[in-house]
Amino acid sequence: MSLIVQKYGGTSVADLDRIRNVAGRVARIYEAGNDIVVVLSAMAGVTDKIIAMAHQASPNPPKRELDVLLATGEQTTAALLTMVLNSMNLPAQSLLGFQARVLTDHTYGNARIHEIDATRIQQLLSERKIVVVAGFQGCDSNGNITTLGRGGSDTTAVAISAAIKADSCEIYTDVDGVYTADPNICKTARKLPRITYDEMMEMASLGAKVLQIRSVEFAKKYNVPVHVRSSFSEEEGTMVVNTDAEMEKLVVTGVTYNKKDARITLTRVQDKPGIASRIFTPIADAGILVDMIIQNTRSEGLTDLTFTVSKADFQQAMEIERNVAEEIGAEAVIGDENIAKISVTGVGMRNHSGVASKMFTALAKENINILMISTSEIRISCVIEEKYAELAVRVLHSAFGLDRN
Amino acid sequence: MSLIVQKYGGTSVADLDRIRNVAGRVARIYEAGNDIVVVLSAMAGVTDKIIAMAHQASPNPPKRELDVLLATGEQTTAALLTMVLNSMNLPAQSLLGFQARVLTDHTYGNARIHEIDATRIQQLLSERKIVVVAGFQGCDSNGNITTLGRGGSDTTAVAISAAIKADSCEIYTDVDGVYTADPNICKTARKLPRITYDEMMEMASLGAKVLQIRSVEFAKKYNVPVHVRSSFSEEEGTMVVNTDAEMEKLVVTGVTYNKKDARITLTRVQDKPGIASRIFTPIADAGILVDMIIQNTRSEGLTDLTFTVSKADFQQAMEIERNVAEEIGAEAVIGDENIAKISVTGVGMRNHSGVASKMFTALAKENINILMISTSEIRISCVIEEKYAELAVRVLHSAFGLDRN
Repeated sequence: MSLIVQKYGGTSVADLDRIRNVAGRVARIYEAGNDIVVVLSAMAGVTDKIIAMAHQASPNPPKRELDVLLATGEQTTAALLTMVLNSMNLPAQSLLGFQARVLTDHTYGNARIHEIDATRIQQLLSERKIVVVAGFQGCDSNGNITTLGRGGSDTTAVAISAAIKADSCEIYTDVDGVYTADPNICKTARKLPRITYDEMMEMASLGAKVLQIRSVEFAKKYNVPVHVRSSFSEEEGTMVVNTDAEMEKLVVTGVTYNKKDARITLTRVQDKPGIASRIFTPIADAGILVDMIIQNTRSEGLTDLTFTVSKADFQQAMEIERNVAEEIGAEAVIGDENIAKISVTGVGMRNHSGVASKMFTALAKENINILMISTSEIRISCVIEEKYAELAVRVLHSAFGLDRN
Repeated sequence: MSLIVQKYGGTSVADLDRIRNVAGRVARIYEAGNDIVVVLSAMAGVTDKIIAMAHQASPNPPKRELDVLLATGEQTTAALLTMVLNSMNLPAQSLLGFQARVLTDHTYGNARIHEIDATRIQQLLSERKIVVVAGFQGCDSNGNITTLGRGGSDTTAVAISAAIKADSCEIYTDVDGVYTADPNICKTARKLPRITYDEMMEMASLGAKVLQIRSVEFAKKYNVPVHVRSSFSEEEGTMVVNTDAEMEKLVVTGVTYNKKDARITLTRVQDKPGIASRIFTPIADAGILVDMIIQNTRSEGLTDLTFTVSKADFQQAMEIERNVAEEIGAEAVIGDENIAKISVTGVGMRNHSGVASKMFTALAKENINILMISTSEIRISCVIEEKYAELAVRVLHSAFGLDRN
C-alpha cells in the first residue's frame, strides 16, 4: 500500500479517449489498495489557444487576467477526469489550485510555490478518495489565481509529493523517459534508467523538454524521487534521483541542443571599466535574458563583445544595442539568428579531465566551427552554426560512447 | 456620480467583437465618473457545449464536478473583458465567484446565495477600479465552486446590487425589454416601460426568458430596481420595480405561453384519502416537478386525475405512473405532449373581476378548447392544444386591450 502522486501532461489528456486511458491507469493503482493524487495539465494545445485568444483581446494582456484565463485549461481536465472516474464508480474529487492550497508568491505567469497546505488533500485521501488536482495553478495570499509557468504541472506534482510525503512521484508524458540525446535526430540514443537531479536540471535548461526545471529543483530540495515515464506504455521510464551507487558510470550522460537563441556582437568596443554595464543594463531593463557572454580582446585597447539572447527578444535587443553602440562609439552591431547551442552534460565530468578537448576534437573532425563556449561544473556548451546542430549531436553522442549497442 | 451594476448575457459577450462593444459601454459609464461593477455570463452556446462534453465523460456527471467545469465559461469572459478594458487604459480587475465572496448553500447546479461579502468589491471600487465579476458562480462554506442555475448571472447582478447598495442594476440582454407578448408571434406586442416584481416573476416562470425568476425574487426582497435593456441599442428598456403610482393602469400586463410541458391523466382512480399521495410521491422521489394538477370527479366514487410535468421528464413520469396505476387499480394512463400553457398576468386583476370569463370567452370565440385551468392572485393560465398556442396569444393580447395603436 503506497501513497502515489501521478502527473499527466497535455498529450496524455488531449481528448476524452485519452482521459479515459488515464482513468484506467489511475483505477488500477487505486484498486490495488494504494492512495493516489493525480495532477493534470490542460489538454494539449489548449494553453496556446488561450494565449492567442488573450492576444486578440489585448496586444499586451495583463498577467493577472491571463492567469485567470489560463487556469480554465487545467480546471477543465480535472473536472473531466473526475467525472470519468465517477462513472467507473470510483470515488474521486477535483481540487483547483486554490482549493488544494497551492500557495504561491504574487508573480503572475511564473509564480513560485511558497508552501502547500495539504490538510484538505490528506482529508480526502483518508476518506479513500482519489484526489484530482488541477496542475500549473495556485493562489497568492490574497486569493488571486497564479500560474507556475510552462511545465508548471510538473512542479505542482513534485511539490504535492513533498507536502504529503508520497512514496513516489510519477510524471507521465509523451516520451518514455530521458534519453542520451533526442531520439528524433539521433537514432542510436538510449533511454537512461537513472539520472541525477543536477544532470536533469542542466539538460532541462538546455532544451530537453521532459521536465520543468523548477520541478527538478524542488525534487532535489525535498529529495523526491521522480519517475518520468510514458502514459502510452507500461514500460519503466527514467528515475530522477540523487547521486547513488547504482548509477551507471558514465562521464557524459546526455547530448542536448537548442535553436532558440540568437547572437549579437558589438565590434571594436573600448576595453575600459563600465562599458559592459552600459551594454547590458538597457537589455536587463527591457526584461531580456542574456545567456552566454564572451569578450575577445583585440589590439589597441579595443575588444569584440558577443552575447546570446532568445530569438523572441532578438529584434528588440538589436535595436537597443544599435543605440548603445552609437553612445559608446562601438564600430558595429552584428546579429546572427542562425546558431545552435550544443551541450554535453554529466556529473561524471567533475572527476574527469579531457571532456572539453574531446568535444572540440570531435567537432573539428567534422569541420564544425565553434563560435562560443560556456561551461558549468557538469556541462560544456558550444554555439555553432545552426545547420550543423543535428550532425553535432550525433558526432558527440558517438564520441562519448553513448551509442546503443 | 452613481454606483452602477451592469450584467451582460451570453449573446452580448458571444465573441471578442461583442466583448469590445460591451467594453465601450462600460468605458462611457466609467469615464462619466461613475463607479461600475460588470457581471458577465459565459459566451452564448458555451454552457451547452460544456454540458455536452460532461455527458460524454459520464452518463451522469457528478454535480460538483459539473459546476467546476461550468464555472470556466464565466471565468473566460470575465478575464477577456478585463483584458480589453486594460488595453483601453482603463483600470479593471476580474473577480471569480469565490473571490467576489458570493457565498451560497451546497446545492451544486442550483445553489442559492446566502450572502455576498462585498468588502473586496468595495475595496476595488474605492481604488476607482472597474470590477468585472464572473456571474452564475459562487462558492459554499468549504470553498467548493457552486453554480446558480440557468440565468444565474441575473441573480449575481441583483445580489451584488443589493450588497453594495447600487443606484441601479442594468440587465443587458438580446431583447430590448419586457413585452406584453412575444413579439415574434404577436406583431402588435408593446414594450412595457415598467412592470412590477410580482408580474415579472409570474411571467418569468411562465417562459418569458428575460430574467431568471430567482433574480426577481431577490430584487423584490431587497427592493433593487432592475433595468432590463438591450446591449445592441441605446434605447431605454423596461424597469422592474415595486408597484408605484406611475404605473400604467393595465388590468393585464402580458400574455405568455410555453410549450415545455406535457400532460398525464390517470383515469377511473378510486376517490379516497391517500390516493393522491400514492400517485405523486414516486414522482417527487424521482425529482420530477409537477406543475398543474386537476381532478374531475366521475360517478361511482371514481375520479380522473390529470397533471403536467416538463416534456424532459415525460417518459420517466409515464413509466412511474403505469406502475402506480397497476398498484392502485386505475383504469389507464394517458399521456399528451401536444399541449401549451397560455397565461395572462397583471397586478391589476387583483381588483378586477371578470378577467377569467373574458379570457375563456375570447378563447371560445376561436373554438380553442381549454384542457386545464390554474390561477394565482395575479395570473390565469389555461392549457390548450399546442397547435393553437400562437393564435391564443394574439387573441388574448387583443381581448385585453394590449395591442399597439
